[in-house]
Order: sequence, then structure tokens, then C-alpha cells
Amino acid sequence: MDLPGRGDGPRDRMVRSATVLLARDGLRGTGLRDVADHATAPRGSLRHYFPRGKDQLVDEAMAWMGAAVHAELSDAGPAALGVLDRFVDLWRGALTASDVAAGCSIAAVVHDSDDPALLARAEDVFESWRRPFREALVADGAAPARADVLATTALAALEGAVVLCRARRDLVPLDQTAGVLAELLRPPPAPAAS
Amino acid sequence: MDLPGRGDGPRDRMVRSATVLLARDGLRGTGLRDVADHATAPRGSLRHYFPRGKDQLVDEAMAWMGAAVHAELSDAGPAALGVLDRFVDLWRGALTASDVAAGCSIAAVVHDSDDPALLARAEDVFESWRRPFREALVADGAAPARADVLATTALAALEGAVVLCRARRDLVPLDQTAGVLAELLRPPPAPAAS
Repeated sequence: MDLPGRGDGPRDRMVRSATVLLARDGLRGTGLRDVADHATAPRGSLRHYFPRGKDQLVDEAMAWMGAAVHAELSDAGPAALGVLDRFVDLWRGALTASDVAAGCSIAAVVHDSDDPALLARAEDVFESWRRPFREALVADGAAPARADVLATTALAALEGAVVLCRARRDLVPLDQTAGVLAELLRPPPAPAAS
Repeated sequence: MDLPGRGDGPRDRMVRSATVLLARDGLRGTGLRDVADHATAPRGSLRHYFPRGKDQLVDEAMAWMGAAVHAELSDAGPAALGVLDRFVDLWRGALTASDVAAGCSIAAVVHDSDDPALLARAEDVFESWRRPFREALVADGAAPARADVLATTALAALEGAVVLCRARRDLVPLDQTAGVLAELLRPPPAPAAS
């Protein structure tokens, strides 16, 4: 994804590279040395920067990806359709950049791990992506309980659409899903003046 | 998932066990020996039954899971809400049986593999799960193009909801998503008699 960067130092480059490799190769397919090589960082620096090893690097990568996407969604304006458009654009960019071979780094970890700390991190990230939808829906006039279920559905549908895209190697499922979600998240018409 | 079985022989048991382990541990986390052990089949029989190795076993497991779920969905009656209920029940059962630790074996392969044959198999399976939704929606009165996008959205949303459930270790995202999908797939009201 084309997201706000971190610094250019080797530590930050490795965190960014980890998100790229997780999204493409999965958690178990992503080795620490692969990350160092992708980041053009010395392998010998891994232990220095990530003394707790792969779990630490993966957790930091998830946290960074979570915060970067959350920042994008929070910056999309107050309307739910704006949040949706921004999220769909991020996914479209990430899928296109990888030739539709990479998906969600957070979902990749969920599929491959039963580590409670990593799953808790995944839940935190998903919640931080759900929240901008929910808040925008409330700002659009939805009742909070309604906004909650719609926000969950939007996030779930986009996450699933990315998987369907990867299997097909095209963007049709994302485009179709985004179109239906736009109807679903559209604010209700204002009541006619009586 | 509680799905129509195959035979009780070691070969069929290994195919079934592979779907269980893929859904829980991911593609790279599932070793051939783990599958044999889970199936209480002799490790030495792996090469006999699956001469092309792990790719063959995984492909057969995906095909079996695909056909088993397709059969369930096709048996759910002609209405889209029936297909939805059946699919949600299957997911609820699978998530509950695994203490919300296992998800979709097909999505697991997509996350971990770039093998064109396995991705093509995943796409075939997803398409076979989308088709019962599409056909039921048309039977309910939707235009084919409309049925197509709704079917994609339903499958995407359920696949994504399962990932959100695993991260939280509860079924709330599935229940929320199923409720919204039920509204989305409900047939349009019949036009009033004039």
C-alpha cells in the first residue's frame, strides 16, 4: 500500500518490508532474513533491532500497517462513502502493485498463527479500521447499533473481496463488492419536509 | 465443517484431515506427516496415495471441501436467504468446533501460495460457492447482473467475517455480517397489484 512512511533507517525499512512480505508470502512464508534482504538491511542487525525475534518484528509490522491505514481512513472526511472510497483505493493500489498477488498482511497473520498476542494485535488493527466506518455512519445519521453492524460488514466484505481477487488474479470481486457496499453505506434520504 | 463424508479408507481420511489442518494451521503450517498423523494413517502410505506430494493432497483437499460446501448450498432450496442461512450455519459450526481457531481452508491456501494450479483451484471453489447465491437470487427475481454482484458480496463478506471472528475469538462479526446480508439478499417486494 502507498502509505505514510516511517523513517529511512534500517529498522523502519525492515518493519515496512515485513508488511510487504506478510501480505505476499504469509506469516510462515516470511523469514527474518527475507525481511532484512528486502529492506537492504544487514542481517546481523536483526537481533539488535528486534531482540524478541520474529514475533516482535511481525507485531510491529502489524501495528504500523494498522496505524497507517487507520490514518488514511480517518483523513477521508466525515461521510461513510468517503471512508469506503479511501479504503477501496488503498486495496486497489496494493493489489495492482503486486500484480494481484498480495493481500492483507493482518489477515495473513490470522490465517497462520494461534499466538494470542498476535491475534490480539490483529483484532486491535481490525477494530481501528472498523471505527472510522462506524463513526462516519453515525455522522451520516445512522443509529449507533446500525452503524456498528454496517461497519463490520463493510470491513468483512473488503477483506474477503481481496482474497477472492487474489484467487482470480483480477480486481472484479473488489469492484463488485465496493459497488454494493456503496449502496449499503449511503445515508438514508432525509425525511421529506412535512 | 460437518459435511458429507468420503469413505473411511486412509486416503479419504487424509484428504479430510488436510482440510482441517489447512483451516487451522495454514498451508505452510500443514505438513504431510501432520496430515497422516491426524488421519491415523501410516506415514509410509503418503507417497503411495499422493505420488505428487503435498500439492496433490492440498489440491484434492480443496476440491473436496469445495464440492462438499457446494452440495450443501445447492441443497438449501431455491431462495437466496436459504443459501445464506445454510452457509452461515456451516461457518458457525466450523468456528465453534475449533473454538474459533480455524477458518477457511481455501482462503488459507490463497494467503500462503502463489502456485497457479492451487490458485486456479481456489477460484474454482469460490465460484462454486458463489453460483448457488447467484442462481437463487435470480430465482428470487433479481436481474442476472444484480445477482452476480450480490453473490460476490455475500461470499466476500462471509469469508472476511470468518477472519474477523478468528482475530476476536468470538462469533460476533459473523452474526453481524449475516444479519446485514439477510437484508441485502431479501427479495424485492412484489409490485402491488394495480
